[in-house]
Amino acid sequence: MSNTEQSVGIVTAQSADFSTPLELACGVALSPYCLKYETYGELNAAKSNAVLICHALSGHHHVAGRYADDDKSAGWWDNMIGPGKPIDTRYFFVVGVNNLGGCHGSSGPASLNPATGQPWGSTFPLMTVPDWVCAQARLADRLGIDRWAAVIGGSLGGMQALQWSIDFPERVAHALVIASAPKLSAQNIAFNDVARQAILSDPEFHGGDFYAHGVVPRRGLRLARMLGHITYLSDDGMGEKFGRMLRSGEFKFGYDVEFEIESYLRYQGDKFSDMFDANTYLLMTKALDYFDPAKSYDDDLVAALRRSRSRYLVASFTSDWRFSPLRSRELVRALVAADRPVSYGEIESTHGHDAFLMLDPPYVRLMRSYLAGVAAEVRA
Amino acid sequence: MSNTEQSVGIVTAQSADFSTPLELACGVALSPYCLKYETYGELNAAKSNAVLICHALSGHHHVAGRYADDDKSAGWWDNMIGPGKPIDTRYFFVVGVNNLGGCHGSSGPASLNPATGQPWGSTFPLMTVPDWVCAQARLADRLGIDRWAAVIGGSLGGMQALQWSIDFPERVAHALVIASAPKLSAQNIAFNDVARQAILSDPEFHGGDFYAHGVVPRRGLRLARMLGHITYLSDDGMGEKFGRMLRSGEFKFGYDVEFEIESYLRYQGDKFSDMFDANTYLLMTKALDYFDPAKSYDDDLVAALRRSRSRYLVASFTSDWRFSPLRSRELVRALVAADRPVSYGEIESTHGHDAFLMLDPPYVRLMRSYLAGVAAEVRA
Repeated sequence: MSNTEQSVGIVTAQSADFSTPLELACGVALSPYCLKYETYGELNAAKSNAVLICHALSGHHHVAGRYADDDKSAGWWDNMIGPGKPIDTRYFFVVGVNNLGGCHGSSGPASLNPATGQPWGSTFPLMTVPDWVCAQARLADRLGIDRWAAVIGGSLGGMQALQWSIDFPERVAHALVIASAPKLSAQNIAFNDVARQAILSDPEFHGGDFYAHGVVPRRGLRLARMLGHITYLSDDGMGEKFGRMLRSGEFKFGYDVEFEIESYLRYQGDKFSDMFDANTYLLMTKALDYFDPAKSYDDDLVAALRRSRSRYLVASFTSDWRFSPLRSRELVRALVAADRPVSYGEIESTHGHDAFLMLDPPYVRLMRSYLAGVAAEVRA
Repeated sequence: MSNTEQSVGIVTAQSADFSTPLELACGVALSPYCLKYETYGELNAAKSNAVLICHALSGHHHVAGRYADDDKSAGWWDNMIGPGKPIDTRYFFVVGVNNLGGCHGSSGPASLNPATGQPWGSTFPLMTVPDWVCAQARLADRLGIDRWAAVIGGSLGGMQALQWSIDFPERVAHALVIASAPKLSAQNIAFNDVARQAILSDPEFHGGDFYAHGVVPRRGLRLARMLGHITYLSDDGMGEKFGRMLRSGEFKFGYDVEFEIESYLRYQGDKFSDMFDANTYLLMTKALDYFDPAKSYDDDLVAALRRSRSRYLVASFTSDWRFSPLRSRELVRALVAADRPVSYGEIESTHGHDAFLMLDPPYVRLMRSYLAGVAAEVRA
């Protein structure tokens, strides 16, 4: 962190309520619904400096800053956003939004269905990336933002950035697609389905309506998160950090923790299952599976991208095997074939998929320099 | 399959009971115990043509042939063993054995503890690869086999072949270590622990004593197998076979099967959970985690291998990411440093870890030519 970097400080979440029905891919018209969001920095007079941050599977609208001075943790991308940071709030008006179906204040399975006064539970509709982009566009309308200086996201967030550039070509100057993929592979879907089956088969899931039973499918969600976590880290990274280190120096010949990696994973699973909604987890993995912007263009990604008027930064990480550099290169090749301007960074890192949340110096340099260019355009 | 290849035909499983206590790594002295095994071919007069097949996580003693003419499936390595096949029963006396802790007839958690008349369940001791090798050595004694012409195994089976060559240097002429590793990585252990947690946290596991409750932790075992299965296949292989193929041509927006890969995995999980013992699954994954022949040699694999008097064939498969070629090369480097004769084959395959059970032509050629050499020695 350089000396001039600062936090965005104390922030406050806001809500936007919408009554116009949102026509979802699944056929449901959702109405009314609420989007929880936060903003940092100032929208300029031309309203040309707005940047949208799209979150990944377990993310939300609280992207930077803290809610109070004694708040122990900051927003999930606080290391990237703030005065002097790569997404520099001295120049950009930054918007973070919790997607529909989330569990952090936007309408979702755990929130109350106004029609019944009960949690939506199993009746909350499944969402797709295009659905989210439509909802985000309505929030942009509400905020008076016609065109984003940049839409930025990692992983599932990167998919939203990509979709924005296809569905709203005139509204996205730059799309930053980080550690992402143009669609999931069979292996990606397979991992998601094991995670889903863990939740769906938990006796306390109750078909998604566990709220009424006063229980939570903690076992299933814990397994889903443990498995997910393995795919966020690299084999090498786990090897460096944990290796075969034993908790007590010798084998215990039982099923309690023996290796430190077991302790770490179980801790991650426990922590997550205490704070995340199981239905949201399911819904987010389905949105990942469904994502395939080429599908409505005869499976031709180049044709889909020809609609775009955006410029792109695509970035991947060498040790990311969930969405490997090969998947980003697929996207870059398609962008080039579609005559879209694209910069591509393949960043050496041992942090695996999680690298998009970390501060590997070449990654920070790439983001800083690309976004400095965007900021210069905005000021020009 | 060449025209001269034949099945070993109808086979019969045999049992060997042992009363001398087996001192296990965990501290327990197991007694009495039973080993289920099969043999194919004829032991020659010099008793020099015996080959031991060691099984992997879900394997057993039924390695080749069928139990009856109308038996729908043959032994698990029937494609590799028989007259005219790479492990040629015209020359070799082949022995398959179900390891202790298994669920196919050898003493294990689901078998009756003679002391109580009840299933061992949670009281069956955890096993290690060296424990299995000791038990197999006693079976070899019983069969009058002083020295194996070859000990052969893939994955966890390869670990047993390696351990044999270290623990009983005079008793192994050739060790064939296929799609294996000198020890598990943190990522390998992590996957195993998620599988274990799925079983251990299944309400029907009952601490391992589910037999008495008349239930089976099917949900946990199903998840464990689904997850395991992903790690047996390669990303590319799954992509070629399943890709993003939909069951019904369009998205259903629900949690039933949408993608063919989901259908395949769930089927594999269901089938396995109907026929395999959950305690055995746990025990096998622990044996994998514990395997580390270098540990008792100051973590020096070369020092461990200097004890060996065997020659080696090490083979790996390019798309195997569970035990990647890098892990086999580690072993080969250590064997070279320990002055052991070693042949190494890195086989191009899209079959992932499962490739060791398949018939990729370069793999078959490698096995055939190496074992022809072993057969020639035996006949000389």
